[in-house]
Amino acid sequence: MPELELIDAIGSILRDGPTSGRIVRGPGDDAAVVRARGYAVSSIDTLVDGVHFRSEQLRPAEIGCRAMASALSDLAAMACDPGEAYIALCLPAAVDPEDALALTRGAHAVCVRHGVTIAGGDVSSSETLTVTITVVGWSDDPGTLIGRDGARPGDLVAVTGALGGAGAGLALLNGTPSAGAAGLHPAVAQRLRHRFAAPEPRFAAARALQRLGATAMIDISDGIATDARHLAHRSGVTLQLTLADLPRDEGVDAVAAQLGADPAVFAATAGEDYELCVCLPPAAPGQLAAEPQLRAALGPLTQIGRVIDGGDELSFTDADATTLAGFEHGRS
Amino acid sequence: MPELELIDAIGSILRDGPTSGRIVRGPGDDAAVVRARGYAVSSIDTLVDGVHFRSEQLRPAEIGCRAMASALSDLAAMACDPGEAYIALCLPAAVDPEDALALTRGAHAVCVRHGVTIAGGDVSSSETLTVTITVVGWSDDPGTLIGRDGARPGDLVAVTGALGGAGAGLALLNGTPSAGAAGLHPAVAQRLRHRFAAPEPRFAAARALQRLGATAMIDISDGIATDARHLAHRSGVTLQLTLADLPRDEGVDAVAAQLGADPAVFAATAGEDYELCVCLPPAAPGQLAAEPQLRAALGPLTQIGRVIDGGDELSFTDADATTLAGFEHGRS
Repeated sequence: MPELELIDAIGSILRDGPTSGRIVRGPGDDAAVVRARGYAVSSIDTLVDGVHFRSEQLRPAEIGCRAMASALSDLAAMACDPGEAYIALCLPAAVDPEDALALTRGAHAVCVRHGVTIAGGDVSSSETLTVTITVVGWSDDPGTLIGRDGARPGDLVAVTGALGGAGAGLALLNGTPSAGAAGLHPAVAQRLRHRFAAPEPRFAAARALQRLGATAMIDISDGIATDARHLAHRSGVTLQLTLADLPRDEGVDAVAAQLGADPAVFAATAGEDYELCVCLPPAAPGQLAAEPQLRAALGPLTQIGRVIDGGDELSFTDADATTLAGFEHGRS
Repeated sequence: MPELELIDAIGSILRDGPTSGRIVRGPGDDAAVVRARGYAVSSIDTLVDGVHFRSEQLRPAEIGCRAMASALSDLAAMACDPGEAYIALCLPAAVDPEDALALTRGAHAVCVRHGVTIAGGDVSSSETLTVTITVVGWSDDPGTLIGRDGARPGDLVAVTGALGGAGAGLALLNGTPSAGAAGLHPAVAQRLRHRFAAPEPRFAAARALQRLGATAMIDISDGIATDARHLAHRSGVTLQLTLADLPRDEGVDAVAAQLGADPAVFAATAGEDYELCVCLPPAAPGQLAAEPQLRAALGPLTQIGRVIDGGDELSFTDADATTLAGFEHGRS
């Protein structure tokens, strides 16, 4: 498929499905034109083959899904309304154009679920399969956005969903351990794989946390041991967490055991979960108990610690920093 | 330099210099927050080492400059006000961190010249040096933006600046021909190299063309023989150009001669110039003659043809399509 034909075919995928009504000019001009709201919330993210994923381990649609979901996750962590995405694909000559289209469809499907329009894109050849996505969300009032810098002493620290599943899924994809060696039911192994291959940005949970008065929030891309430290650093407080309280996906313990890792440490450091780590005012649990609809929108939420005064660090009540440091690594 | 240190150093560069006052939250959160105006104008562009440039031919600052200028050129072609940029760098392990910083400074310098703030970024490792930039401009009235689809029969077709210089500069970088073989004065050879390495987005010219009532506009990235065809196609008209009327940079004829190419064909097809091809109402020359300040802001503008009714194509009065087709190539 010649490049122009591929670009046309990608354009057809992007035009398929509902658009937001905000798009004044989509692909086809030098730039897209989008009707704005008060404040634009924007983030750019890149996934590189061999660094953030391995193309031989994931289906093309999963690569697109993962790239879009991880990019949108940054918008969810700000609790803004999702808006548009712009996607730049770098494709090695050996990539089957049908795979490039499947990748695009995977990214597009995530967008459709969250009301996001892919308003522009770029296709290049490259020796390395690379997907860079810029996402834009909108807010009428920047005071309602949740940064990393608002945590206050006395806040509770909580996490959505469960952790470690994506890391365990990646370990299974890498074949260390195999699902069989870990004694995992095939359905559990499949869910772990899915946690890595197809994360979901937590917009609904973020909106519920916003209503609960969330003071600081971050999405968990590098592992909560790293990401919670960003909250502490930016807020000028200490986050005191209890490692044993971290909720873990089913199957994580078995995979961690095969890797010779403490399951809780694995869940804290494996990363890629794209759940939300949030600081909440002390009144939040009471409000949540009183509002079942909020509880339903939020899904699982687990308190894992507290914000304490001073410092600029993360501490665990049941593990010392050196235990964790061995597992933290500079992710790319 | 460890990755986090590099990211901090890049952040310092981006924070240097004036910002627009629109930035509510810059780098450091999950996403940047920018006070919007009525309409956002956005484009994403990627430069890949070995495809769009060769890292051994350009200084790191030039790579950053070229990436940012070519991205911003899409905003200039819409005649919006430049706003923010988001930059994703993929860096091979062998890249000296100082070179990554120089690349960032090169991109930042273009932004400073045009009042653009780099509001966010991402750094990844990769086997291939890749720079992806999303640029965002703003407009209060989408009716004032200039798309590709507004050309009307009777319009004049014109081009800013001169063409072929970037292509000639690239030929010199490739060593075919050498500046000596082409008999070029060193200063001329240097200017040609600069045309390729450090293009400049034509915001000032675009604003002047907007005031002249421009009906359709595109920036010349692939060569006017390709880009003018996009205008014709999107506007549903024929653009009838005269090849011999294309303005050519000094030194282009000598380089083209060494390559055995017709200089005018070379200028029409070599691309990378990032000048603007524009359709203007017939009254524009009169208005321009009457407004010397507009003329000064616009810089050189050359009429190269006319828009005629019907069709959906580009034609040259002094060359047939097959002559040019041999030079057009699918650019990545």
